[in-house]
Amino acid sequence: MSDSSHDVHVNLGDRSYDIHIGSGQLSQIGSILITTQPLSHAVLITDENVTEYATIVAESLAESGVNVDLLTIAAGEPSKSAAIAATLWEELLSAGADRKSMVIAVGGGVVGDLAGFIAATYARGLAFVQVPTTLLAQVDSSVGGKTAINLSSAKNMVGAFWQPETVLIDTDVLKTLSERDYISGLGEVIKYGMIQDEEFFGYLEDHVFELKARDPETLCYVISRCCRLKADVVEADERETSGRRAILNYGHTFAHALEAASGYGELMHGEAVAIGMMCAARLAESLDRIDGTVTARQHALLQAVGLPVTVPDLGIDRLVELMMHDKKVEHGQLRFILPDRIGNVELVDGVSQELIRAAWTG
Amino acid sequence: MSDSSHDVHVNLGDRSYDIHIGSGQLSQIGSILITTQPLSHAVLITDENVTEYATIVAESLAESGVNVDLLTIAAGEPSKSAAIAATLWEELLSAGADRKSMVIAVGGGVVGDLAGFIAATYARGLAFVQVPTTLLAQVDSSVGGKTAINLSSAKNMVGAFWQPETVLIDTDVLKTLSERDYISGLGEVIKYGMIQDEEFFGYLEDHVFELKARDPETLCYVISRCCRLKADVVEADERETSGRRAILNYGHTFAHALEAASGYGELMHGEAVAIGMMCAARLAESLDRIDGTVTARQHALLQAVGLPVTVPDLGIDRLVELMMHDKKVEHGQLRFILPDRIGNVELVDGVSQELIRAAWTG
Repeated sequence: MSDSSHDVHVNLGDRSYDIHIGSGQLSQIGSILITTQPLSHAVLITDENVTEYATIVAESLAESGVNVDLLTIAAGEPSKSAAIAATLWEELLSAGADRKSMVIAVGGGVVGDLAGFIAATYARGLAFVQVPTTLLAQVDSSVGGKTAINLSSAKNMVGAFWQPETVLIDTDVLKTLSERDYISGLGEVIKYGMIQDEEFFGYLEDHVFELKARDPETLCYVISRCCRLKADVVEADERETSGRRAILNYGHTFAHALEAASGYGELMHGEAVAIGMMCAARLAESLDRIDGTVTARQHALLQAVGLPVTVPDLGIDRLVELMMHDKKVEHGQLRFILPDRIGNVELVDGVSQELIRAAWTG
Repeated sequence: MSDSSHDVHVNLGDRSYDIHIGSGQLSQIGSILITTQPLSHAVLITDENVTEYATIVAESLAESGVNVDLLTIAAGEPSKSAAIAATLWEELLSAGADRKSMVIAVGGGVVGDLAGFIAATYARGLAFVQVPTTLLAQVDSSVGGKTAINLSSAKNMVGAFWQPETVLIDTDVLKTLSERDYISGLGEVIKYGMIQDEEFFGYLEDHVFELKARDPETLCYVISRCCRLKADVVEADERETSGRRAILNYGHTFAHALEAASGYGELMHGEAVAIGMMCAARLAESLDRIDGTVTARQHALLQAVGLPVTVPDLGIDRLVELMMHDKKVEHGQLRFILPDRIGNVELVDGVSQELIRAAWTG
């Protein structure tokens, strides 16, 4: 690997794994994977947008003597369904997948979440490798072991905690990512600074030019830092039982309502998170948890990288109603992750509907 | 509980649980469950054959202040499908199930396996309780944490390891079980004697009359002993990784082929296991691992309780072909669990097709 100094180790006992971050990883996957364990059969799950990358991965595996089956789903959120999961299970069976087979996800969050769920459930669990091809998936969904499919009216409502054996992050794939996809990923990047690391937030403020230019060295550092910050949280709360993992949802209670109200796909996830973080910061300010300078710095950085910061006109009543249906709501109790400074957030209960409405209206 | 001396503790670290065995458990479930943890919402999954028992469970929970939703599936193996799983997921969502909800299976193996898979995957895992209502489920499928649905041509191919919080075994339900269902369950009971416990095998030989008469005291002891024996195996190999758990499959490689060849439901599982154990014993004899007295004792006990012992005319070529497709086959290698005496079995590789065919023909 070209940049092993950027690798991140996720320490989860016998479910520990490494995240390899660098340039040119895709074409090295075969040799990387067979050094740690024997591998004779891999099922690649990818979507129609990234078949070019999946082909590189398939060829690398084949060169290492691995028998490869390539399954391609339609790109987009609707593929994360029970129906597509059922189709993939049958396709694995047809491909002769058994307990020694490995599932490899090559794609963004949709592919990773769906393929991870297939890996978690086929033959009661197959080895799983993530090869995320979007910035959002590289810094967020590919790390941490959450897998999922959607139900008719609830995102990620069915799934399993299933840790990958390895995550391979090739920064080269970001060169061809669309501008909107790329900037959306920066929403989650900025989130890590806000919730865990003031110094990293300052680094992002100082490197807006390099971020906009997709400078490879900056990206390697940024992705590595985000993965490390996420790994810290996941190590402390692997299965979302202690509450620590909830800090990752900063801005997300607002964002999920925005995504649901606008129709999934209209707003990209990172865009919704950016707007949601602004709502959360306003809410924190109204509770006297932060002063206006924190909100202003967050606003300035989000805007500088090109993310939206104002709530689209979707109807406040509807947005508040949708928040009450969030999966994180337990017995009707809304909880918020709110900053008390840049680099630290707390779980806050018992916020009045009046203040929530005010946070939406800005 | 009336018979706490029969309770079995399954020791799996933070996934440990108790199996409560006795008479009158169904109507006590509410008070039993709320002593260990707060419980406000339970989703009961049952089938149309045992709604009478599910109603008793639902009433007991309601009396303890638990909000109950009752979901009823069609009885029989076809319900263990991806389509029915998808329907149940949506029904849980409609019922407002959240991470604090509990799934309770009231039924036989089909209900337990399916409801367990729903519990393992809804909201990435809900608390789960098994209330098995057949002898087979009480001594086998409700203990050990295997959950599953079937694919088109492969039983139990999709699933998860998901341990219950509690298993409640009410021996009263066996009074109304059909004769064929009851005797089928005895197939797995006799298996435990063969694979792990010669003394227990002797007890069964000495209590054929009481077993046939469904004597409550005998049943409490027999079920408790089977659960303890299965728990020993599961504790040693929870996720089927060390190979120890494979001993539970004594007779099953033959049985699965019989079930597939005859169409699922024609032969009951315990009946297929009984015939499969005879094939396995013959195979062990042909390999000089046991002498004819072992085979004869097994034959006599199976026949005494009313189980079938001869292979139905389904075509040996077809049966051998089906064996090669068993989920337990890894890279085309057939493995057998074979006795070397009553009370002990070993994993045996590399058996010739000629001997396998001879074992089928008897």
